[in-house]
Amino acid sequence: MKEFTSIGKRIPKLDAVEKATGKVQYIQDVTRPGMLYGKILYSRYPHAKILKIDTSRAEKLSGVRAVLTGDDIPEIKMGVYKDNSPLKKGKVRSYRDEVAAVAATDPETAERAIKRIEVTYEALPGIFDPVEAMKEDAILVHEKHKTNILKMPWKLHYGDVEKAKEQSEFVVDDQFSTTWVTHCCMGTSGALAEFDHHNNLTIYTNTQIPSLAQNDFVDALKTMGLKNRRVRVIKPCIGGGFGSKLDTYAYEYIAILLAFKTRKPVKVLFNREEEFIATSTRQPTITDISQGCDKNGKLLFRDISMILDNGAYTSWGATTPSVMMMPITSLYRVPNVRYSAKCVYTNNTYSQAMRGYGNPQATFAIESSMDTLAEAAGIDPVEFRRINSNQPGDHTTQGFHITSCGLKECIDKIHEQLEWEKPRERGEGIGIASLIHVGGGARVYKSDGCGTIIKTDDYGKVNVFTGATDMGQGADTVIAQIVAEELGLWVDDINVIHSDTNICPWDVGAHASRTTFVAGNSALGAAKKIKESILEIAAGLMKEPAENLVLKGRKIISRENPENVMETDRLLRKAHFRHQGQMLASEYFYDPANENMGRDFKGNMSMTYTFGAHGVRVKVDEETGKVKIVNYVAAHDVGRAINPMLLEGQVYGGVMMGIGYALTEQVIHEKGEIMNPNFRDYKVLTAKDAVDIDAPVIETIDKDGPFGAKGIGEPGCVPTAPAIANAVYNAVGVRIKDLPITPEKVLAAIKEKKSKKD
Amino acid sequence: MKEFTSIGKRIPKLDAVEKATGKVQYIQDVTRPGMLYGKILYSRYPHAKILKIDTSRAEKLSGVRAVLTGDDIPEIKMGVYKDNSPLKKGKVRSYRDEVAAVAATDPETAERAIKRIEVTYEALPGIFDPVEAMKEDAILVHEKHKTNILKMPWKLHYGDVEKAKEQSEFVVDDQFSTTWVTHCCMGTSGALAEFDHHNNLTIYTNTQIPSLAQNDFVDALKTMGLKNRRVRVIKPCIGGGFGSKLDTYAYEYIAILLAFKTRKPVKVLFNREEEFIATSTRQPTITDISQGCDKNGKLLFRDISMILDNGAYTSWGATTPSVMMMPITSLYRVPNVRYSAKCVYTNNTYSQAMRGYGNPQATFAIESSMDTLAEAAGIDPVEFRRINSNQPGDHTTQGFHITSCGLKECIDKIHEQLEWEKPRERGEGIGIASLIHVGGGARVYKSDGCGTIIKTDDYGKVNVFTGATDMGQGADTVIAQIVAEELGLWVDDINVIHSDTNICPWDVGAHASRTTFVAGNSALGAAKKIKESILEIAAGLMKEPAENLVLKGRKIISRENPENVMETDRLLRKAHFRHQGQMLASEYFYDPANENMGRDFKGNMSMTYTFGAHGVRVKVDEETGKVKIVNYVAAHDVGRAINPMLLEGQVYGGVMMGIGYALTEQVIHEKGEIMNPNFRDYKVLTAKDAVDIDAPVIETIDKDGPFGAKGIGEPGCVPTAPAIANAVYNAVGVRIKDLPITPEKVLAAIKEKKSKKD
Repeated sequence: MKEFTSIGKRIPKLDAVEKATGKVQYIQDVTRPGMLYGKILYSRYPHAKILKIDTSRAEKLSGVRAVLTGDDIPEIKMGVYKDNSPLKKGKVRSYRDEVAAVAATDPETAERAIKRIEVTYEALPGIFDPVEAMKEDAILVHEKHKTNILKMPWKLHYGDVEKAKEQSEFVVDDQFSTTWVTHCCMGTSGALAEFDHHNNLTIYTNTQIPSLAQNDFVDALKTMGLKNRRVRVIKPCIGGGFGSKLDTYAYEYIAILLAFKTRKPVKVLFNREEEFIATSTRQPTITDISQGCDKNGKLLFRDISMILDNGAYTSWGATTPSVMMMPITSLYRVPNVRYSAKCVYTNNTYSQAMRGYGNPQATFAIESSMDTLAEAAGIDPVEFRRINSNQPGDHTTQGFHITSCGLKECIDKIHEQLEWEKPRERGEGIGIASLIHVGGGARVYKSDGCGTIIKTDDYGKVNVFTGATDMGQGADTVIAQIVAEELGLWVDDINVIHSDTNICPWDVGAHASRTTFVAGNSALGAAKKIKESILEIAAGLMKEPAENLVLKGRKIISRENPENVMETDRLLRKAHFRHQGQMLASEYFYDPANENMGRDFKGNMSMTYTFGAHGVRVKVDEETGKVKIVNYVAAHDVGRAINPMLLEGQVYGGVMMGIGYALTEQVIHEKGEIMNPNFRDYKVLTAKDAVDIDAPVIETIDKDGPFGAKGIGEPGCVPTAPAIANAVYNAVGVRIKDLPITPEKVLAAIKEKKSKKD
Repeated sequence: MKEFTSIGKRIPKLDAVEKATGKVQYIQDVTRPGMLYGKILYSRYPHAKILKIDTSRAEKLSGVRAVLTGDDIPEIKMGVYKDNSPLKKGKVRSYRDEVAAVAATDPETAERAIKRIEVTYEALPGIFDPVEAMKEDAILVHEKHKTNILKMPWKLHYGDVEKAKEQSEFVVDDQFSTTWVTHCCMGTSGALAEFDHHNNLTIYTNTQIPSLAQNDFVDALKTMGLKNRRVRVIKPCIGGGFGSKLDTYAYEYIAILLAFKTRKPVKVLFNREEEFIATSTRQPTITDISQGCDKNGKLLFRDISMILDNGAYTSWGATTPSVMMMPITSLYRVPNVRYSAKCVYTNNTYSQAMRGYGNPQATFAIESSMDTLAEAAGIDPVEFRRINSNQPGDHTTQGFHITSCGLKECIDKIHEQLEWEKPRERGEGIGIASLIHVGGGARVYKSDGCGTIIKTDDYGKVNVFTGATDMGQGADTVIAQIVAEELGLWVDDINVIHSDTNICPWDVGAHASRTTFVAGNSALGAAKKIKESILEIAAGLMKEPAENLVLKGRKIISRENPENVMETDRLLRKAHFRHQGQMLASEYFYDPANENMGRDFKGNMSMTYTFGAHGVRVKVDEETGKVKIVNYVAAHDVGRAINPMLLEGQVYGGVMMGIGYALTEQVIHEKGEIMNPNFRDYKVLTAKDAVDIDAPVIETIDKDGPFGAKGIGEPGCVPTAPAIANAVYNAVGVRIKDLPITPEKVLAAIKEKKSKKD
């Protein structure tokens, strides 16, 4: 086996020390000379007509430089469905609707000015329940759509589910539901927009998609009459993404509009309350599921229909069914699958992408139902999953090509490490749940690509410009390791530049756990070109065929005559300083050969898939209903661990997020109003809640991944809730089907169960 | 003739509006969180032993974070000869010697701390005259060198000068001298140094040589024990370069040393007085010249020996003879040439590069002597120059290959535009002087190269990362024009990124009027690669052979079927969004095929040479000696004017600098002390002194230049002084041989002439 010097090493995140010592610049820290402060006025009603907005008192306030309402701005359309706008006109549809905005010389003045804006509303009845909203005579959120049901074709049927139902020996039917949770980024949102004198725009913004945001802003500028302008998107260091920054938001356009109006840089910065009420959540779901198997436990079908609360506007949340399809069709071997989903407008907050992108909701239903089905069939849950496990070489009904697949090994690992067979105390339970996720990109846009530029210098140092967006996950470090390994340098020698559209090549964004795979392959491709040049030059200088030379430890070494050695920096200088020489540089664009889904939703959307199984041992307090995690094992097939430490960090963080989803987190809505917009009332898990997590890694060395790696950004939080739900059932015999699994629900279920027994 | 859309256009400098409105960031504007302010203590003597430095009172001052003396720092060696150090130890050799430095929380505290440092000196006798300094028993500036004469081999002899002297019909001998002048950059010098936690250095500094400065700082870090660290040099917008920023200086190392000691960013910023006393000047020269011609006026020989006052340390000033050789051997056809130069240490300020790099001093002697020789031979000065003019295809004695050459046309232009034959009033005179300068790079370093990276986007916009350093001369704009022309885009579509060693490829620096030629060719090379890709893709999409397609006006157009058109941005999107597509990018490194000079100083140092002739009409007030410029014509063969407006700006600025050199400017030294370190006493010309300058352009379309262009950065100030001196002679019959031509000198000469007559 090849011995690596950087790959597989536990290298701390490149900016770890700068972060720990407060030197990195968050949007909070970014300032520009003459900068103004923007502030947004939100709706006072979940659904109302705007009759009048009087901004005169705000405008009179000293220090106020601009006040904007929906009437003052061009028709910029936002979101997947283009059903949203930066400032609302005529009607508000949720409490988070942006009604007016102010730019002032200091944040306090902006805040005071906002309070001086007088909006006259005519309140309308609201609709807050997606099931109600689907009814024929329901109040319409968007009148012109005629219905609250989004016209999105989430419907597939592979094989023959009805026939399979008939043939099944065991069938279970159930309904599961999930509620709103939010990303809880430690860094609140913000954007700073600035125009130059040619009306080219620079915007510093918290985004996971610099290139796609650039596209949105180019469009917005066009609507503003600014055609053919250049837009530069710079993402400062961000305190968490988790999908929350995959769209562009009203506050970003408001910063742009205010900057354009005032000709000054304008920064809009969210406080924590705004972060809760004006950023998007994970979408709540109601899932009906039916699964069946033959007498040997072989799954015969899976039949799922789903309702998603879309909220008042449409962002990526409405497209999560495209990812839910993945576990629904392809988690375990399932020959017959049917799925349909409806996204429904309500006057609630609107939803967006969040780590797992629908996968956690779907997997909660699937993996809860799997246990119920296993029990019906009289098969141990672990064994039941082994029977149905995906295998390398499988082609799933949806057309996924399963190349590397370590799901069975992951299940075995859980069985072993969780001590599955160990006798359990009263109130103790164990549970397992598996996952499939895209691990080799996900073609959801026209390009799934990423570009890289590499530039060497006379000192054996390398600058890498990557399209990848580091948002704390460690993209910078993984890319540095890949380039260092390929060029035989140390990670110290590599400087990774990211998150600036002027400098960095295009990339579709930090989503779908795609960065290590796609940006990694892109970086590797660019590094290979440099390596080729180095070897060619070295072959001449060292009088040794290129294929006999290896790059290692900042040197070029002859495999056969190890004393024939040249330092890499020396070679670079020789290449540079020879007659008509050059400093080596390279560019490479990698767009994987994965497929967009067709109209039938078939297509190999990822070059490879990541698998995993989570196991958890819980202790349920039958007096209080409280669920305690005793220990947690999260085994993943990651292809190859480029950096085991960062990988474990992803898993730990994902699992903690999953546990919060399972047990404590919910954005409480009352008639569209968020009742707990703060960290006292919203129960995100904190350091003191950390549980013992083991994260064993299965390395299947994927043939297409960079050094064999697959993506692992999201999986950590995918099967956590069903694993815990299964463990709770295993412990006390009650199955909670509605997240979160609060003590109240557990206690009520225990009581109900007892009362039934009695 | 090809019709251009960007080349040849009068396009304003890209950052002109941002500059005019104060939006650009100079070093004065750059701040970093937690930044400290550095201040330098200079010597109290021109030559003294340092007996003791007591820093205790300074250290006690509240707000002082570090005090450094020569004893506290490692042996960092600076300059061409490595005879200088950031802080002096044991001995000071000039008033500008840096003795101690302070970092404090604010500039005022730093200033106060500096005053509290007590240095005990033992004054030594100084040596201020290079002729005195060359004597055997002279006081030694650097004892270990044993002599004050630098061991630099400036000596050449091509042909046989002695024989040619004998063969000459007319011979003239003369001595000319020049004094110190300085660059008078409107932006004073400064540097801001910062270390990260891995001891990688970022330094913002006023430099014309980001890549070479990086090299110096990498070396300094090594001396400081910081091996294998990354160094990033960022040049903020600078208020003038003119050669002053071609070396690294004590203040930059002091900022680095203070930052390293304090672990904080440290900025050292010069005030105007420091800018005068602690930055380097043009070197004073004493030139003995002998020239001779045959009876037809054909030059037969040129024999020059020169003494340069090097000052106390050695920077690039000592290497200016390498450029002086160019006019000495190759301005006009001269078959026999001899040249020697001695650079001599004194206790004066040390000299450096300044626009023209020795050429103005040499050309002052040559072109003054040319008029004297013409007079001796009885030939009109214009005719005399025509007779001896360089011609395309010439190979000069030094081995220069003259490719394009419009010198004769320039001389004719002067003759015509200055109305050479027009009768003149009393006190009115006309003068002419010519120039040769490198116009196609100048190989003075191991590489004369420049790299470019180009990155396109989905909107038909282009980011160009160039090695070129824009310092106000317009490199950004010229590069944008070249790329826009080649890609058929508008200059608005091009964003040029420069002056950051992390992002921009290597370049040897903004010197030798090389940027338009070398960086231009580099940008053109990178653009050609993009163009090739575009045409190849377009050929497929438009079903037309690539060679039938042209890029113009943001479109790809078929030459034969003009209705077969595709918008460039659309094509880029198609290239990007096709299966496994890519965003086009390219990298290109251009190192010209020019030659380093050999030990005999022969070699074609530039790919091409720029020529010019300046003519001036003066009016001399015989009562006061004051010389008034009536009008000035500066004709240049520039190959091709990429941007006539910027080109004229270079010529206007150069000529004004030349007029200052000729008439008013001098850094007055008294025993090593600069007596006029301010703009009241140093007579730089200002807007109110502006004269009427015509800048006709001769386009010879150089075969190697980008779109035929040659360099024109320096020539404007090269022949100004001799043209004026010749005109003064023509006006009142006195020849001033010592610059500047002050009224006092003119008046004295007129008086002397009269007294001789009487």
